[in-house]
Amino acid sequence: MTPIDRYISESSFHVRYAETDKMGIVHHAAYIIWFEEGRSEFIRQRGGSYADIEKTGYFLAANELNARYIKAAVYDQLIRVRCWVDSYKSRVMVFACEIDDASTGELLFMATIKLICLNAEGQVTRIPKEWAKWMEA
Amino acid sequence: MTPIDRYISESSFHVRYAETDKMGIVHHAAYIIWFEEGRSEFIRQRGGSYADIEKTGYFLAANELNARYIKAAVYDQLIRVRCWVDSYKSRVMVFACEIDDASTGELLFMATIKLICLNAEGQVTRIPKEWAKWMEA
Amino acid sequence: MTPIDRYISESSFHVRYAETDKMGIVHHAAYIIWFEEGRSEFIRQRGGSYADIEKTGYFLAANELNARYIKAAVYDQLIRVRCWVDSYKSRVMVFACEIDDASTGELLFMATIKLICLNAEGQVTRIPKEWAKWMEA
Amino acid sequence: MTPIDRYISESSFHVRYAETDKMGIVHHAAYIIWFEEGRSEFIRQRGGSYADIEKTGYFLAANELNARYIKAAVYDQLIRVRCWVDSYKSRVMVFACEIDDASTGELLFMATIKLICLNAEGQVTRIPKEWAKWMEA
Repeated sequence: MTPIDRYISESSFHVRYAETDKMGIVHHAAYIIWFEEGRSEFIRQRGGSYADIEKTGYFLAANELNARYIKAAVYDQLIRVRCWVDSYKSRVMVFACEIDDASTGELLFMATIKLICLNAEGQVTRIPKEWAKWMEA
Repeated sequence: MTPIDRYISESSFHVRYAETDKMGIVHHAAYIIWFEEGRSEFIRQRGGSYADIEKTGYFLAANELNARYIKAAVYDQLIRVRCWVDSYKSRVMVFACEIDDASTGELLFMATIKLICLNAEGQVTRIPKEWAKWMEA
Repeated sequence: MTPIDRYISESSFHVRYAETDKMGIVHHAAYIIWFEEGRSEFIRQRGGSYADIEKTGYFLAANELNARYIKAAVYDQLIRVRCWVDSYKSRVMVFACEIDDASTGELLFMATIKLICLNAEGQVTRIPKEWAKWMEA
Repeated sequence: MTPIDRYISESSFHVRYAETDKMGIVHHAAYIIWFEEGRSEFIRQRGGSYADIEKTGYFLAANELNARYIKAAVYDQLIRVRCWVDSYKSRVMVFACEIDDASTGELLFMATIKLICLNAEGQVTRIPKEWAKWMEA
């Protein structure tokens, strides 16, 4: 269930043909990329930019991913990605997302991803304080 | 140059992180997928649906692709895909596209793709007459 | 830890350039695709073929994915995918994989995926008995 | 036709499930990625490493791609990528490839790509003389 006490970004787009596979439905790795785009959109909607974050020498690297596939998306479907910050600590952020049909709201996919903050040398580092402005509800 | 005597679809979206590569720019195969999405959007804007076309047992298979990379797209950039029908014959359609920066109009990529009409058995077949309603300017 | 009481398939390949992203390392969705290829290879090494399975009207659809990213793979690295059947029930199979550096054995990634058996109509169905010959250790 | 007066690299692998689309065949962008992997393999077989090239501050960026799709590859098929240097000038290299069925030799795809040599600042620059050792037949 989407939380009610924090910012939830929303973005919508049509499923691309390239995202389908021979089963006739969307390939299971495509949702992972949609989730990532949902995080980019979350940061944009909060007034930040993940592109700018990387320019300052910080990176968020995937550490753990947990995903549930509820109903298969299909080509051309207009889907909606909702994304929010589930939790964070000094060096770690957890994003969550739900992907549903943009018209009917039928749930298709849900996932969380744990990201670790790295510096330009690839070392685990503290999340910069300035991120609080877009991370916090 | 985009033609002035026919319908040109436009769609815009942000470059996804997954579409970049270690050169720091968008991978050259990603533009091919954007072009394809441009064709889907073209058909949608013309009142058709490529999903519906396939349901009637017709398919458009790639036969020849010619692409020019003018300037590299980057992560998070808002890009615009413009797509149109370049030409068509009884069994063949050629789509063209230009991809540029949605804000500045700076040209990034242009390509044409020749598609062959196949039936459900994978045989080359005539383009159905009903397609004229969205193919023709 | 890889189990010692069952068949474990192994396959090796070089990381493709397209699998990297602007962080300079492999994109986190690429491992999901390698895991899938590991399952294809597992079935091949056991004398089966997932292509043939689908021809008989059965499909394995992703239901739940849990992944841990330990160390980033990089372009050109020779990696190894090890894959095995973690468990199965009448309608469900769980595959596990470990991905490491093929030369040093350094662990990069581990994951499990729960797959549901579907028939050609997309309904959940029993795993055919004939699969036992490649599923079982 | 593959040339007879120069080095031609060969590599083989099984088509991945993720590379297919809902038409039941391999998506047309996947061949572009196989061609790129063919170039990586070409450089490896010639004793070089494109990973090392980038470490010295040189990059090969796609400029023009021309591709012909002859016959569709399918999931699980063992395919072969043959790749060679078609031509080069001071700042430009053209690679060519043919992709066929590894067992029957039936031709599936052929393409050329023109690559421009860039330095770390993204400026067009001369191809380093040391590359001659792997570029030249």
